Amino acid sequence: MRHTISILVENKFGVLARIASLFSGRGFNIDTLNVAPTKDATLSRMTVVVVGDDAVLEQVTKQLNKLVDVIKVQDFRDGEYVDRELVMVKVSTDKESRSEVMQICDIFRAKIVDVQPKSLLIEITGAQAKIGAFLDLMEKFGIQELTRTGRVAMSRK
Amino acid sequence: MRHTISILVENKFGVLARIASLFSGRGFNIDTLNVAPTKDATLSRMTVVVVGDDAVLEQVTKQLNKLVDVIKVQDFRDGEYVDRELVMVKVSTDKESRSEVMQICDIFRAKIVDVQPKSLLIEITGAQAKIGAFLDLMEKFGIQELTRTGRVAMSRK
Repeated sequence: MRHTISILVENKFGVLARIASLFSGRGFNIDTLNVAPTKDATLSRMTVVVVGDDAVLEQVTKQLNKLVDVIKVQDFRDGEYVDRELVMVKVSTDKESRSEVMQICDIFRAKIVDVQPKSLLIEITGAQAKIGAFLDLMEKFGIQELTRTGRVAMSRK
Repeated sequence: MRHTISILVENKFGVLARIASLFSGRGFNIDTLNVAPTKDATLSRMTVVVVGDDAVLEQVTKQLNKLVDVIKVQDFRDGEYVDRELVMVKVSTDKESRSEVMQICDIFRAKIVDVQPKSLLIEITGAQAKIGAFLDLMEKFGIQELTRTGRVAMSRK
């Protein structure tokens, strides 16, 4: 099962390395991870998406809670949250295919951030299913490069 | 100086922990970091924003290049790239202030992803300066929660 876990930590040296080791030591492969300071610059929020067994993950959560630098661990399981990801993708286009790509971008509310004679640089945000559908459509034009931020999540309330 | 470094790695167990240790071992505090699989699921791309001395960073880059699991390291220094970040923010609003917040969102092309009686959940993407300006404006309404993906970057060409 895929879990989205949000970890509030002290913004210190080595905290990321310690948490990453904790996951890999338990045999969890991290699907996506991101970390950035919060509004309070002494704290960082880490969002980790992992695929793994529920029981083992519960143990990992307990261990995370024991770390001195960890302030709060939240496992987003239920429907009461919103998750988003940003993907930047460079798609091969020429003057024939460009307008078709632009049309699809329009439908998906993707933004074109740069244009070159043979490519478009596109930014898209959304939940996984939407981004997946968009990338499937881009496939036939040719994806030259792709970079993803990994998922962030927030409870609705 | 602030550097944006993109690292293409094998999508394996423990690679993240190794790279995070390399940075923290050298006394570099990571500002933001994210990692996610690329189009080819056997590879992941990591984007790291660090603040630090140029000479020391060059050494870190050399050491990264020596790691078996590292395929390519790119340091985005010059103007020929685009960088973006996604920020989700929960802003306190009531029926009086809601329309003002919505107006500002419109100007910044931020998307409202959820509404509650006392808050709005907003998604904004862009370069750092734009996001900073938006958050400054939201400050007066009250920021309840904030989560950032960290920066991703891509060369224009």
